[in-house]
Amino acid sequence: MRRINNPERIKWKALSERPTINLENLNQTVNQVFDEIQKEGDKAVKKYTHFFDRVDMENFEVSIESINNTSIEISKELKNAIQLAFNNILKFHKTQVETVQITETIAGVKCWRENRAIEKVGIYIPGGSAPLFSTILMLGIPAKIAGCPEIILCTPPRKDGSVDPVILYTAKLVGINRIYAVGGIQAIGGLTFGTETIPKVDKIVGPGNQYVTVAKQVAQNFGVSIDMPAGPSELLIIADKSANPAFVASDLLSQAEHGIDSQVVMLSTDKTIIESVLNEIDNQLAQLERKEIAEKALENCNIILLNSITECIDFSNQYAPEHLILAVENYQQYISQIVNAGSVFLGNLSCESAGDYASGTNHTLPTNGYAKSYSGVSIDTFLKKITFQELTVEGIKNIGPAIEIMAETEKLMGHKNAVSIRLKELAQ
Amino acid sequence: MRRINNPERIKWKALSERPTINLENLNQTVNQVFDEIQKEGDKAVKKYTHFFDRVDMENFEVSIESINNTSIEISKELKNAIQLAFNNILKFHKTQVETVQITETIAGVKCWRENRAIEKVGIYIPGGSAPLFSTILMLGIPAKIAGCPEIILCTPPRKDGSVDPVILYTAKLVGINRIYAVGGIQAIGGLTFGTETIPKVDKIVGPGNQYVTVAKQVAQNFGVSIDMPAGPSELLIIADKSANPAFVASDLLSQAEHGIDSQVVMLSTDKTIIESVLNEIDNQLAQLERKEIAEKALENCNIILLNSITECIDFSNQYAPEHLILAVENYQQYISQIVNAGSVFLGNLSCESAGDYASGTNHTLPTNGYAKSYSGVSIDTFLKKITFQELTVEGIKNIGPAIEIMAETEKLMGHKNAVSIRLKELAQ
Repeated sequence: MRRINNPERIKWKALSERPTINLENLNQTVNQVFDEIQKEGDKAVKKYTHFFDRVDMENFEVSIESINNTSIEISKELKNAIQLAFNNILKFHKTQVETVQITETIAGVKCWRENRAIEKVGIYIPGGSAPLFSTILMLGIPAKIAGCPEIILCTPPRKDGSVDPVILYTAKLVGINRIYAVGGIQAIGGLTFGTETIPKVDKIVGPGNQYVTVAKQVAQNFGVSIDMPAGPSELLIIADKSANPAFVASDLLSQAEHGIDSQVVMLSTDKTIIESVLNEIDNQLAQLERKEIAEKALENCNIILLNSITECIDFSNQYAPEHLILAVENYQQYISQIVNAGSVFLGNLSCESAGDYASGTNHTLPTNGYAKSYSGVSIDTFLKKITFQELTVEGIKNIGPAIEIMAETEKLMGHKNAVSIRLKELAQ
Repeated sequence: MRRINNPERIKWKALSERPTINLENLNQTVNQVFDEIQKEGDKAVKKYTHFFDRVDMENFEVSIESINNTSIEISKELKNAIQLAFNNILKFHKTQVETVQITETIAGVKCWRENRAIEKVGIYIPGGSAPLFSTILMLGIPAKIAGCPEIILCTPPRKDGSVDPVILYTAKLVGINRIYAVGGIQAIGGLTFGTETIPKVDKIVGPGNQYVTVAKQVAQNFGVSIDMPAGPSELLIIADKSANPAFVASDLLSQAEHGIDSQVVMLSTDKTIIESVLNEIDNQLAQLERKEIAEKALENCNIILLNSITECIDFSNQYAPEHLILAVENYQQYISQIVNAGSVFLGNLSCESAGDYASGTNHTLPTNGYAKSYSGVSIDTFLKKITFQELTVEGIKNIGPAIEIMAETEKLMGHKNAVSIRLKELAQ
């Protein structure tokens, strides 16, 4: 990690910058795959599953039998762990449900909002070196609470064309039974246009590699919405002398092991803690399975000494981290100063892993500075809020004249007339 | 309007399709303007203000004196109308404020969400034939309730370089005092990159023509978020025999006058009402100032006879209109069937103009079928919801073992270790 002592504020912006990834050249690939899927459906999906994943599939849809028969392959211990995480995530996300609240803005004019679930949702679960079943909980549970009637899950096939049993088990637990063994651009394309077997959806959510990220961006040009732009995962830790260096090091490493492009930042007011954390990183790194990835990621990461916790929070707000750990004394007093962050972990015992798996909060969060304007996934991700209004005779009389003069000033006489014609009729 | 009787369900999809607008060729223009603004700042903004708007500006920022001196130019009647609309919009949007709710998901694990305003917001108000000051209320009021500290308003200059006094008056009323007389692509580019005079923002909201729409899409590639993709305005009316044909016609025309690409649809179970509405349209059209626009828009619009109100709502859900008027008896019984719509107007007296100006609901709504997955503007548009978590010793002990086994299954041993190291320390 790079050590920086008391940088001037003017340099903070540069220190907050993420490495730019040029995704332009992926656009052409995505456009080509999308074009073929739009025209040829399953045939193109099969072609690109062969091309990218080196798997030849006859049928992408995972059978209900396969989904129902996975339970025996999962240990009791893992089942219990998933159930505990499920319960906490369910409990937290249920608190996000709003009740309808009717407001009479003026006598005779009632306005309110009602939630409606998005009807068709596509959930993307990446493949790679391990089955990321925790993301099924994070996306599937809020989608189910929202009430989405149609939830489609796509995930890359394994070499033999099957899907990892833990993925199937978790999906079944959440209540998802339409699972397609399709990954990458071809999964996003299938969900965008629909094919003979893959249903078209209204919204696509979930993480993925650069191909998936670009494909989700392009999908937006075809009427599909997405959860948020994705980028490499990030963690910023603010630590004072009360922090436990071994804990801080373990958190930084847990983030760094995600990928060589993971972003890790540590801010501190205490030189001794910085020294101790660096030592601890060396110790722990030696024992880490994904040592090489973490080491590579840390090369591009900063440990910065600043003058006060408030200054650290100022820096953090400018950086807008996906995850923020406040390993400082009296952290409560700083909460109101936090403006930009995806999810915040308070104190020495609230490690990022807790939020990644089982505390109840969502782990699908804005990266790459998007925490300045995006929220993480919640039940809102799977809902629309429709406004309703109901005017009585008194209502239209109360607001009608104001509408008439405002519409006239905007030179929209048809808008004015829609009111005038009603007021005239009521005056008779 | 095209009259269609009892179309088969298989034809509904085609009947719901909006005319496709090819915006691809605008991309190049937008990219060029953006590139120059990024490199040359104000100089490029001036160049394109000259090129597109034929106005030569020395200084885009509207002076505080200009903003403060507009009051005398606005009639008392208009001021009162704007104040009434302001009050209702404020009252309705204030009901959207959530209170913090701390949940203990399991003993020792507390999770909650807190709202934070987006710090820098750009509001775009289109120019054109009239000052669209109502949109300032619709965007500025929720931004102010959310607590956005920096709100920048851009709007095209008039031929003499000034901004319409009603725009300035309304902005001041809302509490916006940073106003720039810049429009089109160059406004969106300025807000995206920042120039010597125009501040860079985190999110850009507001309607606009095709240039603005594409510019907002492109802005997303540079880390800026936007409210929603925009398209021509839409209204779908469901009318039964209880509907007032003159009212229905006035509502259809109020929508059609927006532009030749406006989308208007009427669904009915009653042939007589359809006849009467068509007659009324002819009568009212003759007196409409924007007759030619409305007439052109109506050419591409459908009046469809269906078998039941439930069938009408099914069609409407497939169409997903921006505005939906339910001019039917006992409309309350159909509310729960409405799944996709931006804003719904109930009964004969709830005209769309009410929601456009003064009832209290927002008029910035999803078009082009995006009501299937997007909500209209609300205070959520100007907020992030940050999750927080706080674990005690009991908390980490309760969820730690579950995290360990889940992380291990996902082969993220660093994630596991962040928990193990804490559990070990606590066991000592």
